[in-house]
Amino acid sequence: MAEPHQSTTIRFGILGCADIARKVSRAIIHSPNSTLYAIGSRSIEKARTYAAANGFPSSTKIYGSYDEVLDDPEVDALYVPLPTSLHLYWVVRAAAKKKHILVEKPPALNVKELDVILNACDSNGVQFMDGTMWMHHPRTKIMADFLRDSQRFGQLKAVQSSFTFSADEDFLENDIRVKPDLDALGALGDAGWYCIRASLWAANYELPKYVTALRFPIKNSAGVLLSCDASLHWEDGKVATFHCSFLSNLTMDITAIGTKGTLQVNDFIIPYKEADATFSTVSEAWFTDKDLEWNQKPSEHIVTTDLTQEALMVKEFSALVYGIKHHGLAPEKKWPTLSRKTQLVIDAVVASIDKGFEPVKVNY
Amino acid sequence: MAEPHQSTTIRFGILGCADIARKVSRAIIHSPNSTLYAIGSRSIEKARTYAAANGFPSSTKIYGSYDEVLDDPEVDALYVPLPTSLHLYWVVRAAAKKKHILVEKPPALNVKELDVILNACDSNGVQFMDGTMWMHHPRTKIMADFLRDSQRFGQLKAVQSSFTFSADEDFLENDIRVKPDLDALGALGDAGWYCIRASLWAANYELPKYVTALRFPIKNSAGVLLSCDASLHWEDGKVATFHCSFLSNLTMDITAIGTKGTLQVNDFIIPYKEADATFSTVSEAWFTDKDLEWNQKPSEHIVTTDLTQEALMVKEFSALVYGIKHHGLAPEKKWPTLSRKTQLVIDAVVASIDKGFEPVKVNY
Repeated sequence: MAEPHQSTTIRFGILGCADIARKVSRAIIHSPNSTLYAIGSRSIEKARTYAAANGFPSSTKIYGSYDEVLDDPEVDALYVPLPTSLHLYWVVRAAAKKKHILVEKPPALNVKELDVILNACDSNGVQFMDGTMWMHHPRTKIMADFLRDSQRFGQLKAVQSSFTFSADEDFLENDIRVKPDLDALGALGDAGWYCIRASLWAANYELPKYVTALRFPIKNSAGVLLSCDASLHWEDGKVATFHCSFLSNLTMDITAIGTKGTLQVNDFIIPYKEADATFSTVSEAWFTDKDLEWNQKPSEHIVTTDLTQEALMVKEFSALVYGIKHHGLAPEKKWPTLSRKTQLVIDAVVASIDKGFEPVKVNY
Repeated sequence: MAEPHQSTTIRFGILGCADIARKVSRAIIHSPNSTLYAIGSRSIEKARTYAAANGFPSSTKIYGSYDEVLDDPEVDALYVPLPTSLHLYWVVRAAAKKKHILVEKPPALNVKELDVILNACDSNGVQFMDGTMWMHHPRTKIMADFLRDSQRFGQLKAVQSSFTFSADEDFLENDIRVKPDLDALGALGDAGWYCIRASLWAANYELPKYVTALRFPIKNSAGVLLSCDASLHWEDGKVATFHCSFLSNLTMDITAIGTKGTLQVNDFIIPYKEADATFSTVSEAWFTDKDLEWNQKPSEHIVTTDLTQEALMVKEFSALVYGIKHHGLAPEKKWPTLSRKTQLVIDAVVASIDKGFEPVKVNY
């Protein structure tokens, strides 16, 4: 693919020097329609060191504050990897300055906050997208084609998903995701976000009617969730359960079971190998005579990609921004809608925990 | 292996002509220390046809009642694939006649019944084992070695398991597993039994402290469970959730997550291919730099076996019976203990449903 003209690319500013921004800044560099234009940190020295360590283009503007990034008229879009508690303030402020918003998940501490954010983006005509990268891997589309196939998969009946990783002592002491004033949703907002999105994705984004947190979640001494489980129940009887945790070995499984087929994927959030991502499907599985063996093994599918899923995310986001900026298109509603549905379920899990693990009706 | 003398083999009688007995009778024929000696049915014609259709040895005695099998002094052991509601009566009656008992799961409708059965076996000095075949596949032992390995797996934190199959219309109308007077535990007693056993197995047979049924199980018009979910919580914080159902595509997954490792198996109850059964493990999984990929893919392990898991089950059972019969050994406690623990959890799921999905303390 030919290198596009600089003027047709979307210019990104990054707020802060988060670890996750190392990956996304690389994606911005790799995405063909995006330019890494500026980074701001409360410490200009930190920003300078970070930019150098992470291969930022030498042309990248280095700012000693977030506001300077927002005030730079050349910045089209912001990538916001700040702690969740800061999203409301900075995203609303950035939207008011007509900056398009790519924000790390969870996008807000609750739906009430998220609605303020989304209204700010909407009224300023800017694109909103959260940083759920796996949505953008081409594998995800191909898996969804299977899940939506009435012949191969039938109707969805059950989803089991997990996202766990073994946080080290330093993480459990110091990471923003264990701090009530920074990422108060803890493992639910971080790891659970992906399981909830996967459950909604498997259900073709139909919201469940009820969400129930399972008993005995594990919290740290500050009350932040380190591990929890919840179940989602839909009107038609389908059910999803998930387990998310900072306290066990890296695992990211989905088993989605339909009336006619089953989907299995063991690396849904970050593929084992980016370029060749796999998943398994089986349809109309049954036994051989006398139930001795299966009539078939699941088929493994391999999906190749030249760009990483995070670069594809940036590319899709930038294409939407380009359409708004140069062709007067309206922002794409799909992405804020998915963020909001995911956050609605997060809220319901929290409410269920607060209500002694009663089922909580999901407020649309 | 040399064919053993007839006199050293354990002689089986089978009660009834259940579908599942086709598989187990074949296993009795294949197991080197067992002989298929007799079958009894309420209809001698049915028994004769069944024996012929399933390759029973021509020497097999055909009886027109269960009692005749029990009364045959040459019968050492009974395989009992009758509906669960009949287990109590027939197993107690058979134990009184000193017959050793291999009984289909669930062994009883509840622990109270099972205790009567186990006491009858115990007081008559006969071996008891339920027909949970996958326990006897050599893969199960190798997977357990991984789960018990403090270096490769660490401490168990979470288990997700499922067993579902898509029952046809005839099954949903007529199978004993949807009839309240025959197998009143429905999908929980049939499919759920395996998930509960798998959860206990992963926890090295430590019983959970609490069991909670998830809301909105699906029952047929007679009140028999067709699909349900439940969670098991242990004192130390580990959790297991399972989904069992007659209403969706054949699936039998376990994901067991420890502090240091993860086990994945997608055909735990009946391997895709009996002779070469697989599972996957990964230890200390983490990401490469910038979280772009995993540092490793899970390893696939292949376990080969000459005998099917059901033949291995019969072989193990017969070896225990042989030891009792010829060497005066006591019956092996392991098998009734595992049956009872599994049944205790079944009871707790039922109790939780009855109590409006409250957590139920498991009574030891």
